[in-house]
Amino acid sequence: MPAFSTNMRLKFPIVALLLEIITIALYAVFVVYDTGDAHHPSAHHGTENKSDEASPVTLYPMFQDVHVMIFIGFGFLMTFLKRYGFSSVGINLLLAAFGLQWGLLLQNIWHLHDGKIRVSILSMINADFSTATVLISFGAVLGKTSPVQLLIMTLLEITTFCMNEHIVVEILHASDIGASMTIHAFGAYFGLAVARMLYRPGLRNGHDNEGSVYHSDLFAMIGTVFLWMFWPSFNSAIAEPGDAQLTAIINTYFSLAACALAAYATSSLVEEKGKLDMVHIQNATLAGGVAVGTCADMSIAPFGAMLIGVIAGIISTLGFKFLTPILASSLGIQDTCGVHNLHGMPGILGGLAGIVAASLGRKANISAGYQAAALASSLGFALIGGAITGLILKLPFWGQPPDQNCFDDSLYWEVPEEEEAGESLTHTDHSKNKAEA
Amino acid sequence: MPAFSTNMRLKFPIVALLLEIITIALYAVFVVYDTGDAHHPSAHHGTENKSDEASPVTLYPMFQDVHVMIFIGFGFLMTFLKRYGFSSVGINLLLAAFGLQWGLLLQNIWHLHDGKIRVSILSMINADFSTATVLISFGAVLGKTSPVQLLIMTLLEITTFCMNEHIVVEILHASDIGASMTIHAFGAYFGLAVARMLYRPGLRNGHDNEGSVYHSDLFAMIGTVFLWMFWPSFNSAIAEPGDAQLTAIINTYFSLAACALAAYATSSLVEEKGKLDMVHIQNATLAGGVAVGTCADMSIAPFGAMLIGVIAGIISTLGFKFLTPILASSLGIQDTCGVHNLHGMPGILGGLAGIVAASLGRKANISAGYQAAALASSLGFALIGGAITGLILKLPFWGQPPDQNCFDDSLYWEVPEEEEAGESLTHTDHSKNKAEA
Amino acid sequence: MPAFSTNMRLKFPIVALLLEIITIALYAVFVVYDTGDAHHPSAHHGTENKSDEASPVTLYPMFQDVHVMIFIGFGFLMTFLKRYGFSSVGINLLLAAFGLQWGLLLQNIWHLHDGKIRVSILSMINADFSTATVLISFGAVLGKTSPVQLLIMTLLEITTFCMNEHIVVEILHASDIGASMTIHAFGAYFGLAVARMLYRPGLRNGHDNEGSVYHSDLFAMIGTVFLWMFWPSFNSAIAEPGDAQLTAIINTYFSLAACALAAYATSSLVEEKGKLDMVHIQNATLAGGVAVGTCADMSIAPFGAMLIGVIAGIISTLGFKFLTPILASSLGIQDTCGVHNLHGMPGILGGLAGIVAASLGRKANISAGYQAAALASSLGFALIGGAITGLILKLPFWGQPPDQNCFDDSLYWEVPEEEEAGESLTHTDHSKNKAEA
Repeated sequence: MPAFSTNMRLKFPIVALLLEIITIALYAVFVVYDTGDAHHPSAHHGTENKSDEASPVTLYPMFQDVHVMIFIGFGFLMTFLKRYGFSSVGINLLLAAFGLQWGLLLQNIWHLHDGKIRVSILSMINADFSTATVLISFGAVLGKTSPVQLLIMTLLEITTFCMNEHIVVEILHASDIGASMTIHAFGAYFGLAVARMLYRPGLRNGHDNEGSVYHSDLFAMIGTVFLWMFWPSFNSAIAEPGDAQLTAIINTYFSLAACALAAYATSSLVEEKGKLDMVHIQNATLAGGVAVGTCADMSIAPFGAMLIGVIAGIISTLGFKFLTPILASSLGIQDTCGVHNLHGMPGILGGLAGIVAASLGRKANISAGYQAAALASSLGFALIGGAITGLILKLPFWGQPPDQNCFDDSLYWEVPEEEEAGESLTHTDHSKNKAEA
Repeated sequence: MPAFSTNMRLKFPIVALLLEIITIALYAVFVVYDTGDAHHPSAHHGTENKSDEASPVTLYPMFQDVHVMIFIGFGFLMTFLKRYGFSSVGINLLLAAFGLQWGLLLQNIWHLHDGKIRVSILSMINADFSTATVLISFGAVLGKTSPVQLLIMTLLEITTFCMNEHIVVEILHASDIGASMTIHAFGAYFGLAVARMLYRPGLRNGHDNEGSVYHSDLFAMIGTVFLWMFWPSFNSAIAEPGDAQLTAIINTYFSLAACALAAYATSSLVEEKGKLDMVHIQNATLAGGVAVGTCADMSIAPFGAMLIGVIAGIISTLGFKFLTPILASSLGIQDTCGVHNLHGMPGILGGLAGIVAASLGRKANISAGYQAAALASSLGFALIGGAITGLILKLPFWGQPPDQNCFDDSLYWEVPEEEEAGESLTHTDHSKNKAEA
Repeated sequence: MPAFSTNMRLKFPIVALLLEIITIALYAVFVVYDTGDAHHPSAHHGTENKSDEASPVTLYPMFQDVHVMIFIGFGFLMTFLKRYGFSSVGINLLLAAFGLQWGLLLQNIWHLHDGKIRVSILSMINADFSTATVLISFGAVLGKTSPVQLLIMTLLEITTFCMNEHIVVEILHASDIGASMTIHAFGAYFGLAVARMLYRPGLRNGHDNEGSVYHSDLFAMIGTVFLWMFWPSFNSAIAEPGDAQLTAIINTYFSLAACALAAYATSSLVEEKGKLDMVHIQNATLAGGVAVGTCADMSIAPFGAMLIGVIAGIISTLGFKFLTPILASSLGIQDTCGVHNLHGMPGILGGLAGIVAASLGRKANISAGYQAAALASSLGFALIGGAITGLILKLPFWGQPPDQNCFDDSLYWEVPEEEEAGESLTHTDHSKNKAEA
């Protein structure tokens, strides 16, 4: 691939500004504030009589927790790569900033009020949620895609997500309060399908930059810990106010706590010298939040949530250790961040737990059959949508990086000089000699 | 300048403790809790009858968001310099800790109740706000001033700010809910005036330490992302509860999202190879929050907020690329962090947008003329106050750093040994030889 | 000590999973959601009639602030060591995740409802609080203990804490809203007693890894600043809703602000060249939050809170400079993070301030005598519990690190290769030569 093809100077600004201008035009036509007295967010929950729910900003602290998960959590979680931190946190911000605008449009286009979309804190939370699918998929293709490719993926993935979400919520009436199926499993398998389409045989034997340095692992822990802490908000933000919301908070809190112990134990167990592996700690400790998502607001009892968390922590860690290498070598799926282990399998586990909980009557008005249909729909849309998206992204003019420049910020970013010269933070004799010469 | 003059051992503790003791004495005379049943914060908003607003801690989550912006946001945003992170986050904490105490006094001295200042969450938010002006100005003089100079600047700037704020709010009755004019434009031009007074010809050709390293840019992104996420709280915290507050949240959310796309696009467009520049991403993505401040609580429609964001993102990025070098070379204004691009021009844009919105009747009881007067007042107080403050800080006994020690923590901080020896994270042959010798 | 003894492969997973399985079994028997209409958290405060307090998630934003302090605050505060960041933030997460599960059980086993523990946001806050004692003690033994030892310490310390808390709250009816005595002094002296029992003569002359590098000090500042910002939530989260809670927020806000000035001034004063010391800034700036804890919800007036903050900031800084070395050399107490200066002395100061405030009638229904008894009880349980725990941890089969491997992540963690070779971020000639060979 010739070097000039990765120059973003024209194609990136054009794509970004075009998307933004189209979005603004659609907002000018469709989007208004959800103010006035007829349409409080609480009305969505049938609790309009409770005067203390009437403030339009009641959900705002929950929204901000989710916001932190999207922008700090996902962004810093991916900074573990030694030379890809700018892209991880920077492109994460770009994709989420566009995604939330696009998601808010598509999520609400199905139910206009007088031809308008009314923006409330609740719709902002849902818009943030829609971006999470993209950020999960971003993890699967991290380091191997250009910003232009990723903007297009954002556009297509959120569009696909909104179709599936509409089917799951409005047609199947399935319950998926923490979105194990519609966000986590969907985002993971969408991303894996894209990664399969973009398979790079040249990276079969790994890449020098596909690893961490000491401090990049610490930056990643900022992401991990903020995700871990605020996950109860993710799983409860749009729950029915009152007891259901409290239940979702408590289940997620305990599932994550139990998951952490299981992930640490398993990480030590699978390594010859019993050492902990940062990859497992950064990711598998979060699997309990994913897996308890679907039934977070159901009466599964705290110990039920903890069992789900323990299982999620174990399978996620085992997935990183044993499954990820096999996926890469046998199926041609190069999953940079291991999203299959954090979002894929735990998301399916969450869907299955929801089916079991439904069949045990843990929540009113849901059925095991429709829950299963929702899981199947989410996986189907993800795989087909991801495969089509991957084919589009394979087109040769999106500025994708050559193999040798993968996992390297300097292709798309100005990188500080003394760092660019060495291959890692610690190699600088050459740059030093230059500086002193 | 002789080396001893930068020794802070006596002058810094004396100034810091003296300011603190005077402050405590004034608090002993003037400051009480806003408890009891006659003076809920909600009374300020004329909504006392709404029982659900009556809790004195309703605004506390908003306060904490603003608090995070002040201490994490501003503090880490300035850690981008390779050798000035301790000062950035550490002196930021010092200045804000003193500034909030001083600001709370001066903001409320105009309207005592029975000779007392009653502290509520609302007054804590306003106190935090007052420190933001200083932290913006700090960005203009970052690396070129001593802690003693900065404490004095804090004292003088907050005093000036409170005078201007009183005129804008109480006399002109102008609307500036997100403080584009009274905080952002004010803080920027105050800082630029100080920087002009402290002009250092010796730094005309730059300084070895006036740049970033890879990980310092990542630390700065912590600041950027927290500012970006919580800006809706900054612009809505003191808005009228209910619809106006919701409007301020929504406008800021969309303005920032659109601004991010514009900043990324422009950053790529102005660089020869189309690469993104971390300086733009760290700063210009936030300009939308500044520029939408004045009219955040006005009915400008979401697409109006997005347009403001796009314009702010473009002019801010262009400012970093083209204007900052000219200001330094032609006007003698050395603006370390480029606050003119993040707070100055977007702040003026915000003031202008407010004038337009006022003339279009986007908010009741405000007039374009008074809005314009408020902008003029803010700029005037900033430039004159900043110039006088700069003259005072120019006095030779405040321990200012010699040119060659600018942008270097080790002048005022104990710095870990192996780091001090080299010029950057990556140069350590000398220190290593010493350690091994 | 033979090398194999530190291999965690069997003992760590067994201990971790065993603790988790026992915990889940106990939860299956005892723990239910606090849902339904008879037992809102507000009932604990006797304010059931206030309809706006009735939401079960009212305290959730406060809970999340405390959560951030526990997992980000404590975790990153300890990352200051150059080669121990993985353990600091990682083992912090492990201990807190287990501790909150265990703490919730033991704190509520004293008052079952129909044989059950009902989980609410309030009990989640208290569970998080219980882990803080362990994280404080962790600071005293940081770098010198194995994960297995620390899990056992968590089990024993939280058990001891719950006994003392029961005596202080239920029997002595002492007031300690911000837990200066029951968490801070308790955690510090428990940890110091453990450290005394685990005294290592081999570390008398320090250790190469017992220091910071430039960026590790910046990571630690993330912890410091989040603790500093959210401390008002820590001291007010379980206060009586309304005025008492507001008072606790305000007192803590001002105590910390004044403390910061005092800590900076003292840090500069005690160093020959007047330079600031990161150790002081990272820790002593927080002492005001500890010291104002006991009387945070009492009417001590804002200036009273500020005086407490100033005193705390001064004694904490002096403690780091002068007392810590003496404790190590004369008493054999090697206090890695200096928890005696941040939690120990300021905790006692807080207890004493509570006694004075009680005797001055600053809060109804408390007595100076019972406050003094509570302080004595906390110190007694801490010292005896810590000593016994230390003896148990001294048993030779817990995988404790040999002296030369102290303060080194690589004993218990997979550490990125290029970093492991050098002794710090900046020493890599050897690794480089290898890489180039």
